[in-house]
Amino acid sequence: MIAPPFLMSTMENPTNIVWHKSSVEKLDRQRLLQQKGCVIWITGLSGSGKSTVACALSQGLHMRGKLTYILDGDNVRHGLNRDLSFKAEDRAENIRRIAEVAKLFADAGIICIASLISPYRKDRDVCRALFPEGDFIEVFMDVPLHVCENRDPKGLYKLARAGKIKGFTGVDDPYEPPLNCEIVLQQKGRDCVLPCEMAETVISYLEEKGYLQA
Amino acid sequence: MIAPPFLMSTMENPTNIVWHKSSVEKLDRQRLLQQKGCVIWITGLSGSGKSTVACALSQGLHMRGKLTYILDGDNVRHGLNRDLSFKAEDRAENIRRIAEVAKLFADAGIICIASLISPYRKDRDVCRALFPEGDFIEVFMDVPLHVCENRDPKGLYKLARAGKIKGFTGVDDPYEPPLNCEIVLQQKGRDCVLPCEMAETVISYLEEKGYLQA
Repeated sequence: MIAPPFLMSTMENPTNIVWHKSSVEKLDRQRLLQQKGCVIWITGLSGSGKSTVACALSQGLHMRGKLTYILDGDNVRHGLNRDLSFKAEDRAENIRRIAEVAKLFADAGIICIASLISPYRKDRDVCRALFPEGDFIEVFMDVPLHVCENRDPKGLYKLARAGKIKGFTGVDDPYEPPLNCEIVLQQKGRDCVLPCEMAETVISYLEEKGYLQA
Repeated sequence: MIAPPFLMSTMENPTNIVWHKSSVEKLDRQRLLQQKGCVIWITGLSGSGKSTVACALSQGLHMRGKLTYILDGDNVRHGLNRDLSFKAEDRAENIRRIAEVAKLFADAGIICIASLISPYRKDRDVCRALFPEGDFIEVFMDVPLHVCENRDPKGLYKLARAGKIKGFTGVDDPYEPPLNCEIVLQQKGRDCVLPCEMAETVISYLEEKGYLQA
């Protein structure tokens, strides 16, 4: 067994504060990472570009030396939430669990990017309430339904319109846009706003609020 | 909106590989952190010292500049797993979810320390199977029942012996020790082995296996 001098000495010296601290805390991890843990909660219709912006955001932050992790509604359903169906109560539980995991990631000091439709205001507010003030940053992908439906990257709108998917958000289930979210991302005028530009909007917000330093 | 030159240039130059990469991957995060993501799965009886070793381990690794996060059976029950009871199927689900979350943490590049009794070999093997070869490091707190019961830090053995807790591991429910775990921690002879020494055993293992570098 290897016991390096610095640990042995802390055992011999009971006044050493590092050893007697009960555990490594959030602040210690944040100092190590030079950032503050939080969650960027990206909400919006299917096809609104949530995953694309999540990727661009993780890229932009990684290039600045910041540690991020994406929790994607679809991906988590293959692991943690694979026991959940798409019926109403299971969708709520899907969101609850992702928020709880995001909370653990934020506590770990990580900038967690959660990307999921999360159509109901009530569910999103329950998630927000789990976090300390400021650490839940809601980003609304404000893209009109007809644009999302035209894109239809997974062919889901087509299936929903054909009645092959029931309770599809925007078709036969409502999407409730945020009333007071931190950031709204939208196409302005005729110019196309690229995902990396949208990501920069979020990064500027994080910078301004002090999340990119310990 | 701020769009730094390096991002703008990637937009103007479609051959730039950084921008076209779909996302930040595990290897990128590991390079950033200079470590490899994995889970240290600490199993053992109540009172065997799992949490104490988990804390000492997180301290020892933090002092080396490594990012860790502790998933504690008890703590997670207050959040993610607060819908679960202590009946058999819920205990299995408790373990499954913790393993799935540990998998996300490992994918984030973090050294995740999971500390929970996890008494059944079968359940632990299900967890192990979620991880790439080598990334699930099982640590057995090999402390005799009578020692744990003498310590009884939470007074749970007393309650179990009095019949006030049913199905308590070691009393009226079995603990199945690992057959082929990576690390066994035990008191050797008469000398007391301190938690930080046990942590050093684990750290030496991680060092040897290359987990403390990218």
